[in-house]
Amino acid sequence: MGKSLPVSPLAPDSFPDLPEIGGLRIATAEAGVRYAGRADVMLAHLAPGTTVAGVFTRSATRSAAVLDCQAKIGGATGEGAAILVNSGNANAFTGRRGADAVAAVSKTTADRLGIPAERVFTASTGVIGEPLPHDRITACLDDLAARLTPGGLADAARAIMTTDTFPKGATETVTIDGQHVRIAGIAKGSGMIAPDMATMLVYIFTDAAMEQPVLQDMLSVLNRSTFNCISVDSDTSTSDTLLMAATGTSGIRVTETNVGFMEALRRVMLDLAHQVVRDGEGATKFVEISVTGAASDAEARVHAKSIANSPLVKTAIAGEDPNWGRVVMAVGKSGARADRDRLSIWFGDLEVAREGQVSPDHDENKAATYMTNEEIVIHVDLGLGGGTARVWTCDLTHGYIDINADYRS
Amino acid sequence: MGKSLPVSPLAPDSFPDLPEIGGLRIATAEAGVRYAGRADVMLAHLAPGTTVAGVFTRSATRSAAVLDCQAKIGGATGEGAAILVNSGNANAFTGRRGADAVAAVSKTTADRLGIPAERVFTASTGVIGEPLPHDRITACLDDLAARLTPGGLADAARAIMTTDTFPKGATETVTIDGQHVRIAGIAKGSGMIAPDMATMLVYIFTDAAMEQPVLQDMLSVLNRSTFNCISVDSDTSTSDTLLMAATGTSGIRVTETNVGFMEALRRVMLDLAHQVVRDGEGATKFVEISVTGAASDAEARVHAKSIANSPLVKTAIAGEDPNWGRVVMAVGKSGARADRDRLSIWFGDLEVAREGQVSPDHDENKAATYMTNEEIVIHVDLGLGGGTARVWTCDLTHGYIDINADYRS
Repeated sequence: MGKSLPVSPLAPDSFPDLPEIGGLRIATAEAGVRYAGRADVMLAHLAPGTTVAGVFTRSATRSAAVLDCQAKIGGATGEGAAILVNSGNANAFTGRRGADAVAAVSKTTADRLGIPAERVFTASTGVIGEPLPHDRITACLDDLAARLTPGGLADAARAIMTTDTFPKGATETVTIDGQHVRIAGIAKGSGMIAPDMATMLVYIFTDAAMEQPVLQDMLSVLNRSTFNCISVDSDTSTSDTLLMAATGTSGIRVTETNVGFMEALRRVMLDLAHQVVRDGEGATKFVEISVTGAASDAEARVHAKSIANSPLVKTAIAGEDPNWGRVVMAVGKSGARADRDRLSIWFGDLEVAREGQVSPDHDENKAATYMTNEEIVIHVDLGLGGGTARVWTCDLTHGYIDINADYRS
Repeated sequence: MGKSLPVSPLAPDSFPDLPEIGGLRIATAEAGVRYAGRADVMLAHLAPGTTVAGVFTRSATRSAAVLDCQAKIGGATGEGAAILVNSGNANAFTGRRGADAVAAVSKTTADRLGIPAERVFTASTGVIGEPLPHDRITACLDDLAARLTPGGLADAARAIMTTDTFPKGATETVTIDGQHVRIAGIAKGSGMIAPDMATMLVYIFTDAAMEQPVLQDMLSVLNRSTFNCISVDSDTSTSDTLLMAATGTSGIRVTETNVGFMEALRRVMLDLAHQVVRDGEGATKFVEISVTGAASDAEARVHAKSIANSPLVKTAIAGEDPNWGRVVMAVGKSGARADRDRLSIWFGDLEVAREGQVSPDHDENKAATYMTNEEIVIHVDLGLGGGTARVWTCDLTHGYIDINADYRS
């Protein structure tokens, strides 16, 4: 890295106005972990009483920070908490030294903020396998603690970027009992994106008051249809972390029965998930794969992921080629049930295949014109049952090869 | 297609001298299915008594020809058999018309050769989803039948090419009881290569006399460690077909106890499988992934395939970057058992990681120099048990995008 990449053509027009969340203060710093001339560490301090929930990668080679966070989720909330994230180095596959580095930054953070080390959640993102120069991070902590401020989420979104070409944020406000409850989140991620349980680095904050098990269940359920439904390149990170903190400063209690809050949280999560796809390495097209008529929702998802991860489907989209035959191939190889002669396929509103063969309505020119759009919807109906799924991905272009054939050099 | 691709830098120096196989006669023709100015159909006639075995794609959207072949394997051998293959059009996902086309070319072939239609094995390879202009093929059959000749395997290897940049052939001779038994095979394939049960199009012939169940079992077993262990792009074809015919004209009976024959057949299959990888779309590196120390052979294979199919591993190899962190990632996401802190990795003879962290012997410059080789071996030891696997793949380059972003246009 080091050279800066052009901003993705699929980037949103601007970064949203993120509100201050009561009980949350943030600071960023230039620790020089790997990058020069930019902030690469963020510290978030959470007020006493804040509950924290998390969803993490299921990789068997998870990073030390992920293992540490998983052990800490659900602890006592009395003395507040902190989130400390660095970019540039993932501290993954660094053995005993990796765990020691997490312990060291957790302890220093805890000391500076006067909270227990068991309430410091860390994450590291960047190159795998190189020892984390954690002294550079701990050296910044006095300064970070001194500069904590209620705003700062936008700066934090920038500090955690690696190959990202734009910072990612989303927010919603829900009115409950006439009072505003705020949700604001930031994310990073653009490559090694095929979340298994969670994805990338995502931090969401709310001033709602929520019991930890409620927050955890809500986050886990919503994760299934948001971050778990995106893929850039089918490669699953060792460091995927989604944390959500509820500070309670609004005084409004939210439980699992609050559908309005859940809907708003889902919109924030889906917005952030889509932004990650829009920043997919080399992406020029944002693609929705919608599967209906599968034998079950689970099988619909298997088909949808198989299409979304197929290099031949993704290169056809890059080439603006309405090559529905490759969609058939991806359905066929997925392992989930399919009947070739019941399969129908649409590109946008254009039916290209019906019941196992080219649609009588198929017009190659119209389909080719549709493929020139920046946003593409591919809909497959299996004609078997009521199972549905939607996943989001991007195309596979020369840009992906450019970025990944020399990421480290 | 139509534009011709440069020959893969990984191609063998020359096409091997394939022997005549008694009982096998071949002809090729320019049917004009899709390509102009080149042979695109091959017909093989097999003498009465020839046994035929086959292994096929497990895709749920298999082509009509694959379904037809599967139904025909194991039939009576008294009147001989035929294999008819066209390139340019896969006749896959063509509904009722696809099955009708297979029936039509089978019947015409049977009539011309005086054999039952149940003994005509067909295959089609090329674009998916477009109706096969089968009249162009049947129109050639008089001519093909008239020109059948004992040589001709080399021409056949060319006639079945699609995006292949070189024809693929391999041969072995085994001495049994002082007499020669010959094995000769041809293959095509370069993209949509991630065989599940069989792969691509492969035709192998021997003049050994073999009972069909023996031939079938031997082919199925050997397929597991040859064609089923290669991957170019993780995409599984709808048309993968591996057929082997034993004509018996040598008079030498081969059974499952003939280890020498099995070893020779395995060498032919592995040679052809490696040639397919060497012709992988855009390939500039031939890569062996060797996994040891897994909990079982099956889990070793899951890890090996996960590494071989990872776009991030494949782009790192293209970039000549000894990025072992991405190998760790691919092990972690595979779903098979792994213990991060027992994992060791070698690039060639260079140990780059030991027991979960960078090896004390790691020398980045040496590793980078190793990656400039045209043939790369990545060895991962899980440190868990005795499970092993070896698979072969190629790198992921701009050439793959070039070829696949406009295959149809």
